[in-house]
Amino acid sequence: MLLHTIYLIAIVAEAMSGAIMGMRRDMDLFGICVVGTITALGGGTIRDILLGNYPLGWIIHPQYLLFTIGAAIVTAFVARFLHHLRSVFLMVDGLGLVAFSVIGCDIARANGMVPGIVILAGMITGVFGGLLRDVLCNEIPLVLQRELYATIALFTGSLYVGLLWLNVDPTIAPLVAIGCGFLYRLLAMRFHWKLPSFNGSGIRGFE
Amino acid sequence: MLLHTIYLIAIVAEAMSGAIMGMRRDMDLFGICVVGTITALGGGTIRDILLGNYPLGWIIHPQYLLFTIGAAIVTAFVARFLHHLRSVFLMVDGLGLVAFSVIGCDIARANGMVPGIVILAGMITGVFGGLLRDVLCNEIPLVLQRELYATIALFTGSLYVGLLWLNVDPTIAPLVAIGCGFLYRLLAMRFHWKLPSFNGSGIRGFE
Amino acid sequence: MLLHTIYLIAIVAEAMSGAIMGMRRDMDLFGICVVGTITALGGGTIRDILLGNYPLGWIIHPQYLLFTIGAAIVTAFVARFLHHLRSVFLMVDGLGLVAFSVIGCDIARANGMVPGIVILAGMITGVFGGLLRDVLCNEIPLVLQRELYATIALFTGSLYVGLLWLNVDPTIAPLVAIGCGFLYRLLAMRFHWKLPSFNGSGIRGFE
Repeated sequence: MLLHTIYLIAIVAEAMSGAIMGMRRDMDLFGICVVGTITALGGGTIRDILLGNYPLGWIIHPQYLLFTIGAAIVTAFVARFLHHLRSVFLMVDGLGLVAFSVIGCDIARANGMVPGIVILAGMITGVFGGLLRDVLCNEIPLVLQRELYATIALFTGSLYVGLLWLNVDPTIAPLVAIGCGFLYRLLAMRFHWKLPSFNGSGIRGFE
Repeated sequence: MLLHTIYLIAIVAEAMSGAIMGMRRDMDLFGICVVGTITALGGGTIRDILLGNYPLGWIIHPQYLLFTIGAAIVTAFVARFLHHLRSVFLMVDGLGLVAFSVIGCDIARANGMVPGIVILAGMITGVFGGLLRDVLCNEIPLVLQRELYATIALFTGSLYVGLLWLNVDPTIAPLVAIGCGFLYRLLAMRFHWKLPSFNGSGIRGFE
Repeated sequence: MLLHTIYLIAIVAEAMSGAIMGMRRDMDLFGICVVGTITALGGGTIRDILLGNYPLGWIIHPQYLLFTIGAAIVTAFVARFLHHLRSVFLMVDGLGLVAFSVIGCDIARANGMVPGIVILAGMITGVFGGLLRDVLCNEIPLVLQRELYATIALFTGSLYVGLLWLNVDPTIAPLVAIGCGFLYRLLAMRFHWKLPSFNGSGIRGFE
């Protein structure tokens, strides 16, 4: 199935992004594998723990761990030659984000959640892996600061839920949502779209 | 019910405290909403995951998410005018702490936990939201460093469990515990009470 | 049972390590107890949440919390006199690591997991307590950077699973695995063995 193939590509891309961040923090090979794996599978794991959706995906399919660990190890050895592939990487990463969102929505729907929670589950699947990566690397999570990443996950999930509600064919709806979400990501990167932020440095008295 | 009203006020206050911390870290509007929501609902979520108490509260009542997201958005736009309200904010925040503790105890009791775990569940509900907030904002959690916050949560929970054990009327006991815990918080703030800390900078050999 | 005695010694050692780290961050007595307890019981808690293995160990046996809290409090008061005990501490800590790994494997096996997940569960039990400790103390987790800690947990778990697969007596197998894992830890400390790390500071274009 196409969605499953996209999912496998996405976890490889996410594992690479985690591995690169781990290398920048001088982690050893074990740390690189852990951060890569948590980046790739952490969003879905948090979603399933919050929904009580057991057993977890990577416990049913341990081969996912081989994909993420393999991707992290390969990245560790070839990362210094990858900068030519920057735009490929960003596109795969963006495709992963929207695919994760749609898959997260599907799992919440299968667990009988209301539409708001379905969309939230998609967003958590899409962005919480990167959030865990940044916490492990002792950074303020990038998705909370200046990426339109999360907005794209929410947009993709909302579009997907809306299409299903309109009785669009359930083999077509995820593809439309993924296509539109991916296009949004490309445009956001191209034109540097971002959400407003608020200079909070002058706020006093709430320590 | 009074306890429920206090709970709603408390999650709004906690969401505001998370939103303000997020603004100080230059987060965008999405990040402010995430940190606000996790600050407000994170303590109860961790408690329920540890107890295996599914489904989670905000999945049964998704409207709680609207409260916390709404509070975070409003805070983002009005925070610079809020410093006149500092003492109101601190009182609502303190009320939230003791209300969270009592509610956490109730949920652990309903899950058949022993008294020690009931008090611990109250404490986790009261302080782990703020702990997650500080981890996301890349800070050493304030509650672990110099607030009497956690002590007040433990005091409130212990008092509540003690009153129930003494067969105090279960509509009276939470109000007495909340009242005494809140008084303790006010006194602790007024007189700068704090727990001992230990200068660990000279300890060698346990890296 | 010997394994249970080793477990109790191990959680005391881990709680001490957490308490010392907390003291270095100027935490108060409450923070020291929380960090000590999470260091000692956090790895097993994460394992059980991931496996869906409820109720959690310290909810069935709340006395474990008394051990870890007691160890943290004692450490807070005597830590400045402990440096003479450095080598004892490191040996107890190493023993704890391998005991945690074997116990984690046992629990995953009792939950019907495949061998790869069994070994992973042992590793998570051994190292994720220290990982949580470092996240709470606002550090990049040491186990991800330069300790052979995780490798020893994986080695111990793999050896244990291998011995059981070879039908070694299930009262002998854990002792052999613990003995060999502990020896490996001693050798790794003595000869400063470490995994390769990769200088990632020059990698561009994957922000």
